[in-house]
Amino acid sequence: MTDKDILYSYFRSSCSWRVRIALNLKKIDYEIKPINLLKGEQKTEEYRKIQPFGFVPAFVDHKTGHTLIESVSILEFLEETNTTYPLLPKDPIGRATVRALVDAVAMDIQPVTNLRVLVYVGDEKKAEWAKHFQAEGFKALEALLEKTAGKYCYGDSITLADLALVPQAYNGERWGVDMTAYPNISRISKALNEIPEFKAAHPTQQIDCPAELR
Amino acid sequence: MTDKDILYSYFRSSCSWRVRIALNLKKIDYEIKPINLLKGEQKTEEYRKIQPFGFVPAFVDHKTGHTLIESVSILEFLEETNTTYPLLPKDPIGRATVRALVDAVAMDIQPVTNLRVLVYVGDEKKAEWAKHFQAEGFKALEALLEKTAGKYCYGDSITLADLALVPQAYNGERWGVDMTAYPNISRISKALNEIPEFKAAHPTQQIDCPAELR
Repeated sequence: MTDKDILYSYFRSSCSWRVRIALNLKKIDYEIKPINLLKGEQKTEEYRKIQPFGFVPAFVDHKTGHTLIESVSILEFLEETNTTYPLLPKDPIGRATVRALVDAVAMDIQPVTNLRVLVYVGDEKKAEWAKHFQAEGFKALEALLEKTAGKYCYGDSITLADLALVPQAYNGERWGVDMTAYPNISRISKALNEIPEFKAAHPTQQIDCPAELR
Repeated sequence: MTDKDILYSYFRSSCSWRVRIALNLKKIDYEIKPINLLKGEQKTEEYRKIQPFGFVPAFVDHKTGHTLIESVSILEFLEETNTTYPLLPKDPIGRATVRALVDAVAMDIQPVTNLRVLVYVGDEKKAEWAKHFQAEGFKALEALLEKTAGKYCYGDSITLADLALVPQAYNGERWGVDMTAYPNISRISKALNEIPEFKAAHPTQQIDCPAELR
């Protein structure tokens, strides 16, 4: 057992990124163990024992020695065990609304456009695929945000929904989705990207980010 | 406002099914409003106002009049507001473990093989696609269950993980995945399918199930 939590992470993984933001906001001291998805390090027998799907992130809670997987489940764990910077509202309807925004990204946009799916779709069609499902997803998410957003995704406080939004909006831009079509998504991500804890979680700030992308 | 909760549901939707089981176990009185996905009822302007992605389920909490979306977020809401038949353990590591099993299904298997994705993949390739991603997902889920399962997915009590498992295992069979390759998944789903609250949530027991499928 170490004296620090450990995050198995890949600099550009949106699911790792969500958790990095939470750890930063909650002032949790953690060490990154990079898993290079392009080199297939997620497919080693050793890593599959930790995460049988071969996905990042995985999180080692140093107090118990337990390894946790699935980014949203890790976020809920951090929320339940660390009261610094709460990321869910207190009322059940508010919590359900924030969680629905998280799931809109984490279930309805990200999984359909992640690396293993795009590899299976193939080089020829993957850009069209990623753009189609992200654009469709952002359209629906924008409609949800019209009802919930203030300064951030849910009113004026940062919530788990904002942690899901920022990496997904970055992916949208990366795949050439016209993000100006989603004014709430664009405005909120821009505001969030100015916040130090979000900046520190950005792919370009990670130890495993190649020098040419920094 | 009505005196009953309302569930917008489609008999064969695995996400609706999860919520139906929770409502049954928690003895919540609810009314089903069927949304026929094959007839495109999820794409009407009226329904898109409720759920902009056009997915089922959606849930109207009659006490507050609020409509909630995203199945896992609805499950968390029911868990927080109804103490009948708790579906999450009390300790944080246990909760994180159960949630990871839920997310393994709800993020890593279901979204990649749902109706809109299969429609986009096209008739020619959709069976191969569904089988590939379900088999890959069940393999990883089986590895997780080897570590967590007792009588059910997490020890010997029914948890949210079991609510996610049953509909997904049904889909696996429907698409011709060889479920005998996953002994824990097969054994646990079989045991769960004997429980009255699970039986009542089954597609064949729904008011919108066509007579020829009953």
